[in-house]
Amino acid sequence: MLCGIIRIMNKFIIKHEEYIKRTYQLAKSAQEKGNHPFGALLVIDNKVVFTAENSVISDNDITRHAELNLVSKVTQELDPEALSQGILYTSTEPCAMCTGAIFWAGISNIVYGCSAVVLGEIAGGTFVVPCRDLLKYGKRQINVVGPVLEDQGAAIHRNFWKASE
Amino acid sequence: MLCGIIRIMNKFIIKHEEYIKRTYQLAKSAQEKGNHPFGALLVIDNKVVFTAENSVISDNDITRHAELNLVSKVTQELDPEALSQGILYTSTEPCAMCTGAIFWAGISNIVYGCSAVVLGEIAGGTFVVPCRDLLKYGKRQINVVGPVLEDQGAAIHRNFWKASE
Repeated sequence: MLCGIIRIMNKFIIKHEEYIKRTYQLAKSAQEKGNHPFGALLVIDNKVVFTAENSVISDNDITRHAELNLVSKVTQELDPEALSQGILYTSTEPCAMCTGAIFWAGISNIVYGCSAVVLGEIAGGTFVVPCRDLLKYGKRQINVVGPVLEDQGAAIHRNFWKASE
Repeated sequence: MLCGIIRIMNKFIIKHEEYIKRTYQLAKSAQEKGNHPFGALLVIDNKVVFTAENSVISDNDITRHAELNLVSKVTQELDPEALSQGILYTSTEPCAMCTGAIFWAGISNIVYGCSAVVLGEIAGGTFVVPCRDLLKYGKRQINVVGPVLEDQGAAIHRNFWKASE
């Protein structure tokens, strides 16, 4: 029984890592377009159904974080039942704005790569809000997993913000 | 001296009430278009420079709250220096998503009509986050005034959510 549970958990850990690596690719893709290095995707039934990148610079709009772009897309395309089954993977722990958007979208599972605290240390964060703190205000349970492969995510940020100095 | 201070404060209170009444008009306008009753505007140098309404239903996008729509517009049009001088007026205390957006925009003054707690009581709020609680995480000071003319804002919500039941 115990072996079975461990096998299942390992399977999920491997899946989480696989999808977080995809968000890191999206983050790098955003950076290549002149944006900030953040990416996110939504998985339903073990399939990636939507992806999004940060587009703050290219859209000249401070709200265009990867997760907010993703939530905009998915609430236009999917019904609440589908959203409640989805897992939102994001390269970096969602900020307060994006955590709020994720809550309103009815998404109940978040997995993030690099933590907000580590991003804050690298980028000189002025508004570091751990998403679990904020989600305590919610009457709906949202499951949060992270950090996952944080070193890889932190390296992307270190490279970007060092170059921006 | 004291009389002078009271006169200045009264002048500001009157201004706040005037602009909050305008946000209530915007909230009613949103409702007339089939959206949720929320409105917001940005004042710089005592002039309304941008207005926005909730457009969640008409845009089929859960992120399109009035304040987020406003922040999208103003960060596309105004420079950070102008934004830091602005006052964002909103018909209802901004949610976590919108408070985050306001912070990222560099806006330093918020005045709201109806409080999040009162909205939550009327609408059965599932994610009631007083914006002052959230802004404590910020390293930049944001001045918050409210509630202002809360009874009028609450009446708009009571009318809307009663009709939605």
